[in-house]
Amino acid sequence: MKINALVAQDATQPLSTHQISLRPLQKQDVKIEILYCGVCHSDLHMARNEWGVSRYPLVPGHEIVGRVVETGAQARRFTVGDIVGVGVMVDSCRECHFCQQQEEQYCEAGFTATYNGIDKYTGESTWGGYAQNVIVDEDFVVSVPQHLPLAGVAPMLCAGVTVWSPLRHYNVKAGDRVGVVGLGGLGHMAVKLASALGAEVTLFTTSPEKGADARRLGATQVVVSRDDAQMAACRASLDLIIDCVAAPHDLDPYLAALKTNGRLVLVGIPDSPHLSPDITPMVFRRLSISGSSIGSIKETQEMLDFCGEKNITADIELIGGEAIETAYARMLKGDVRYRFVIDMQATRW
Amino acid sequence: MKINALVAQDATQPLSTHQISLRPLQKQDVKIEILYCGVCHSDLHMARNEWGVSRYPLVPGHEIVGRVVETGAQARRFTVGDIVGVGVMVDSCRECHFCQQQEEQYCEAGFTATYNGIDKYTGESTWGGYAQNVIVDEDFVVSVPQHLPLAGVAPMLCAGVTVWSPLRHYNVKAGDRVGVVGLGGLGHMAVKLASALGAEVTLFTTSPEKGADARRLGATQVVVSRDDAQMAACRASLDLIIDCVAAPHDLDPYLAALKTNGRLVLVGIPDSPHLSPDITPMVFRRLSISGSSIGSIKETQEMLDFCGEKNITADIELIGGEAIETAYARMLKGDVRYRFVIDMQATRW
Ligand SMILES: [Zn+2]
Ligand SMILES: [Zn+2]
Ligand SMILES: [Zn+2]
Ligand SMILES: [Zn+2]
Repeated sequence: MKINALVAQDATQPLSTHQISLRPLQKQDVKIEILYCGVCHSDLHMARNEWGVSRYPLVPGHEIVGRVVETGAQARRFTVGDIVGVGVMVDSCRECHFCQQQEEQYCEAGFTATYNGIDKYTGESTWGGYAQNVIVDEDFVVSVPQHLPLAGVAPMLCAGVTVWSPLRHYNVKAGDRVGVVGLGGLGHMAVKLASALGAEVTLFTTSPEKGADARRLGATQVVVSRDDAQMAACRASLDLIIDCVAAPHDLDPYLAALKTNGRLVLVGIPDSPHLSPDITPMVFRRLSISGSSIGSIKETQEMLDFCGEKNITADIELIGGEAIETAYARMLKGDVRYRFVIDMQATRW
Repeated sequence: MKINALVAQDATQPLSTHQISLRPLQKQDVKIEILYCGVCHSDLHMARNEWGVSRYPLVPGHEIVGRVVETGAQARRFTVGDIVGVGVMVDSCRECHFCQQQEEQYCEAGFTATYNGIDKYTGESTWGGYAQNVIVDEDFVVSVPQHLPLAGVAPMLCAGVTVWSPLRHYNVKAGDRVGVVGLGGLGHMAVKLASALGAEVTLFTTSPEKGADARRLGATQVVVSRDDAQMAACRASLDLIIDCVAAPHDLDPYLAALKTNGRLVLVGIPDSPHLSPDITPMVFRRLSISGSSIGSIKETQEMLDFCGEKNITADIELIGGEAIETAYARMLKGDVRYRFVIDMQATRW
């Protein structure tokens, strides 16, 4: 069966519509009609082979919300008509320590990526969500609260769970003081989710004009990170900071903002190294710097259930698929509040 | 009351014997006749003002073992004749969050250092353990198992508890796989203590000739850190690494040696920055880099009790006080296995 998709043919051409074939429906699979797909920075990097690992043709997209249209003979979790989501992973080894304890994102064999991964059944590339349909093992499909505005749910499948996972792993709770660095796709979700968990949120930004928006999203304090006096005023005040900035930067001001025993969580990977962090405050105040990668299927479901209760979704700009290159260009300028989402049904194939 | 001590008169002169006055015995104080004092790298740095904070005259020494010879009117914990220890701290604010939960090493007001600190009662410098006596508030004095060889106990008061604290804070237990970087004063205690806790210990060293000694001390594996093949063979194998090397170095090979969720604990502070760590494995395997500073009084007591049970002490070279400058010179060459300890009663004042 052939479907339409936005395809990168190589690293230099713009994405364009082509037909692709999905794998035959396996017995545990669900086939999903894609309604919305968020546009993640990874999509852009991978479309243009900026990490040197892209295989073409390539269909980006791993923030997928859609409707189940067919289920395999042994698929039990979903029925036709269900609104579901698919994130960054579509499979994993199922056997390692991490798979066994439902942390597939750390699968020792490496999870199967939603796009540019190797499909276990076909041995060929996986195709992402910039497409009319996707076929995924039901174990890697999550249930979406139907009352939420579905376009705003899409970015939660990657951006949302990437910040949700460390907030939960490090047990952020009511009254905790949480910092968020950067108000982009990830950062704006971190502000919403941390404040919904009851934390007092401080947003660090280089753009003072984002202050009002940060407060609207749930921050109680906005600190302009280039302002030394503002940075000094929040010294040793935070329990945990989620640093969403991938560009190389100085981590020391954020270490300074942590209380003793505090933790700086990095969710972005810089192209070139950050400045080397000062070890002195790390020793004298027992600080930690930790990495964190996306989140598990279990955490994704937990986040969606929480967001269903709290009525949380991402702030988005909805586009047709034909506008993807314009969206990429604006993303490169940081000109998006806070995530582009492709409306698949409005897309002119 | 005047006592003899080894005194640094300024940053350039060798230590020499002078008389100093201790503070009058306060009601919670114990007066200790010092039997042994370990020689810590900090002593050398402080004697020579290498951190720019030394005040002279200065008496180094914060690895003290001695005998109680007098107690204040309200001192209840010790009686004359008890064998006791004093480490890096002799007081703290007693009121902050950390003091309240018995983590005085992270006192928000800063603890009172055993030497070159500000004595709460006199407002003058505190005097360290290169001396015949010391007077300390009983709350900062620990009990030493008397059957242990006491000279070997001295280094545990700083070097020992500095590695004990993170081993305990991060809950190292039987079967865990622990790495130790560097076989010096701290590293050799880390090997002994981690293996006594039941961990399988891997010692990383640049000096292959230390291998046999590391195994004698409890390591089950010795890895020459300059040997890429040996480093590659231990990839993703360790739960926790205690990095005892203060000199600037590359942390990435140790991050590579950690399992997913692993932690690299730094207990030394480099003069100039380490190479900036690669964030990629930290994100993809949820690794952490954490600092840790000495240990609490409670942890120190717990460690000494544990070492009493397990018959653990430091490996030392005993010297008279008059040999201190020779000892410093050898320490600078890394020529000590593994700690110099001053025998106060054998010292020719
Ligand atoms: Zn993504
Ligand atoms: Zn696995
Ligand atoms: Zn020391
Ligand atoms: Zn305190």
